[in-house]
Amino acid sequence: MNTSVQQLQNTLFDQICEAWSLLQEQQPLVHVMTNAVASNYVANILLAANASPAMIDNPFEAEGFVKIAGALSLNLGTPTTEQIEAMQIAAKTAHNIQKSWVLDPVGYGNVLHWRSCVVDQLMTYQPTILRGNASEIGALAGKNIESKGVNSTVDSSEVYLQAQALLEQCECIAISGESDYIISRDYPVIQVLGGSYLQPRVTATGCALGALIAAYSAVSSPAIAALSAHVHFAIAGQLAFAKAPTLGQFNAAFTDEIHQLNIETIRQYADFRILAD
Amino acid sequence: MNTSVQQLQNTLFDQICEAWSLLQEQQPLVHVMTNAVASNYVANILLAANASPAMIDNPFEAEGFVKIAGALSLNLGTPTTEQIEAMQIAAKTAHNIQKSWVLDPVGYGNVLHWRSCVVDQLMTYQPTILRGNASEIGALAGKNIESKGVNSTVDSSEVYLQAQALLEQCECIAISGESDYIISRDYPVIQVLGGSYLQPRVTATGCALGALIAAYSAVSSPAIAALSAHVHFAIAGQLAFAKAPTLGQFNAAFTDEIHQLNIETIRQYADFRILAD
Amino acid sequence: MNTSVQQLQNTLFDQICEAWSLLQEQQPLVHVMTNAVASNYVANILLAANASPAMIDNPFEAEGFVKIAGALSLNLGTPTTEQIEAMQIAAKTAHNIQKSWVLDPVGYGNVLHWRSCVVDQLMTYQPTILRGNASEIGALAGKNIESKGVNSTVDSSEVYLQAQALLEQCECIAISGESDYIISRDYPVIQVLGGSYLQPRVTATGCALGALIAAYSAVSSPAIAALSAHVHFAIAGQLAFAKAPTLGQFNAAFTDEIHQLNIETIRQYADFRILAD
Repeated sequence: MNTSVQQLQNTLFDQICEAWSLLQEQQPLVHVMTNAVASNYVANILLAANASPAMIDNPFEAEGFVKIAGALSLNLGTPTTEQIEAMQIAAKTAHNIQKSWVLDPVGYGNVLHWRSCVVDQLMTYQPTILRGNASEIGALAGKNIESKGVNSTVDSSEVYLQAQALLEQCECIAISGESDYIISRDYPVIQVLGGSYLQPRVTATGCALGALIAAYSAVSSPAIAALSAHVHFAIAGQLAFAKAPTLGQFNAAFTDEIHQLNIETIRQYADFRILAD
Repeated sequence: MNTSVQQLQNTLFDQICEAWSLLQEQQPLVHVMTNAVASNYVANILLAANASPAMIDNPFEAEGFVKIAGALSLNLGTPTTEQIEAMQIAAKTAHNIQKSWVLDPVGYGNVLHWRSCVVDQLMTYQPTILRGNASEIGALAGKNIESKGVNSTVDSSEVYLQAQALLEQCECIAISGESDYIISRDYPVIQVLGGSYLQPRVTATGCALGALIAAYSAVSSPAIAALSAHVHFAIAGQLAFAKAPTLGQFNAAFTDEIHQLNIETIRQYADFRILAD
Repeated sequence: MNTSVQQLQNTLFDQICEAWSLLQEQQPLVHVMTNAVASNYVANILLAANASPAMIDNPFEAEGFVKIAGALSLNLGTPTTEQIEAMQIAAKTAHNIQKSWVLDPVGYGNVLHWRSCVVDQLMTYQPTILRGNASEIGALAGKNIESKGVNSTVDSSEVYLQAQALLEQCECIAISGESDYIISRDYPVIQVLGGSYLQPRVTATGCALGALIAAYSAVSSPAIAALSAHVHFAIAGQLAFAKAPTLGQFNAAFTDEIHQLNIETIRQYADFRILAD
């Protein structure tokens, strides 16, 4: 590793630690609109991370609540007509008042045409951070990917280069997969390692990650928010698996580790690489 | 403690034990309309307590189902237009046939204006028991409280005196917080102690508590129902924390303890105080 | 046991093992529309069993998604107007293209009239497999059963004979209860034993079972799919209870055991009986 890369790596370590500390102190209010499968889990993960989730997804309170929230998180998992109306109001408001917001375009692709149109329309409000799996981000970047429902059919390593084109519409893109990739205007591409193979076998972990990025974005820059949330998840997944390698027990242990992360575990376990520009 | 307070304390102990025994025997059918975040958890907590939850929240079956249920529980967490219509029919029906019902005005306050209007309208059907956190109950009692989403910004001890004014609209008010307060027409204010600091870090515990009050109200008077449910939760929280002090494990252990409560643990751990009139 | 019954028993053992193996290999995409209480749990159980759940329940994507899914699972727990519209489109599509689909008529009976009419209408699209508790299946078979909300008031052994009349409308009927019964055009009635008395104390286990039947039906015949899913659940329940006999811990252990089932545990623990024709 050359000196400037090493320096950047050190700076990022410090910024992740600082973001985590600010999250603990400020416990930011996160306005979350997510899917029916994920809502309980997402709220619990945000609470475990010391954020304050508010799952408010009706069109009548969307505008007012975005204004008082620290950040907004929109997830397209199981949209209803009424929830989409709420998302459109919320995204527009966030855009207008420059509130940080995260878009998770669950299922984006040629198979789920209706929601993909909704996502296209939400994209016009320029999400601060776009977060998804490789199929979704690849499809948004214009690749013709044959998706299989809501799970990715391609590897994150195959799409992160193309994804950079999306920086015209948002400040940061976070792609999850066996490795995660953080793409931003501020830094070279960052690859995040760690986690456990059981994470994708627990539903809504990706949805919760999107909401956690929003929480971090209330206290730090978009790229640091995405990086911190991904590192938070990767460490929690790794430590949870070490303690509880069976699926049901892993799920409870993962919440434990999200809650128990601290500066020391970040310093010891955070594993990310700065990729060549 | 003077003699009459001691006598009342003993009477209440007996009544909590009796309410718990009746709940186990009768397994009352509880008609629950709750939010998307809470529904799975609330059903599981009611099942753990030996009640029979039925999460029916459409306007087409609301009237008929209130009539056969033992009690009704309404929670405003993530209302949809269709669910609100169902709540209005259910509350009106419960009022007309004098069926016990609990209202949990999640997020009531000046920030969430729309739902607060819905709550005001539901209040005209005079809930048997009103249950909420200190922000919500304080705002309903006319205090001008700056709420932060759905979590309380004031302490329960600050609002229980003002909350007595709400007894004109309902028979009992239960306020949860670091201490809980049960306010009723029948008894002096009762303060419930115990629980664990982890309880508010698990989403929907308050929502589940409201539904459990409804379950108890199918087998006992409003004040005893609220007191019994709060004591049930406080003991379960305390014992769960003693066995599993980490957040994810605590969650599973809490369900265990809700299920395993018995007369002996009530006698040993119930901790409540009768406050001066 | 006479020779031909013994032979059939052996054949069924082999077919269950084969169905489980195919499920692991193919990880079929299961299109699920279920209730708000169950959605997270159902997705997690399907993931634990190595299927690929997609919880897509809007009317705008229903037709297209049924076409790419391996099977469809419809559950009437907490229907909304929009979700019912989606279910009707999905059932019609599945019927037209002969895609395997499971109907779980939660709460069917004289008390919940509205949803019962919806179920009647969905039945015209001839579900491949009908799955429910004894109250629901009994009511569908024309018995006049006084239901108590969504839990059964009669025992499965009381209705399985009458349920055979429903074979005119579907290929297989699976009734859950203390014993489970699989009724099909292909085999004599099969009774499945095992499980744990705690299973009905965890909400949505029945809903998850319906979705797992759909998953198996993507890789095997209707009767073998129903039998395999019931055996899968019964073994997981039995082994989970042996490891974790308290309600909250049982829930996590059950997911573990759904995930860890293998040919050896099927051979050792599967417990079913072929009833006289």
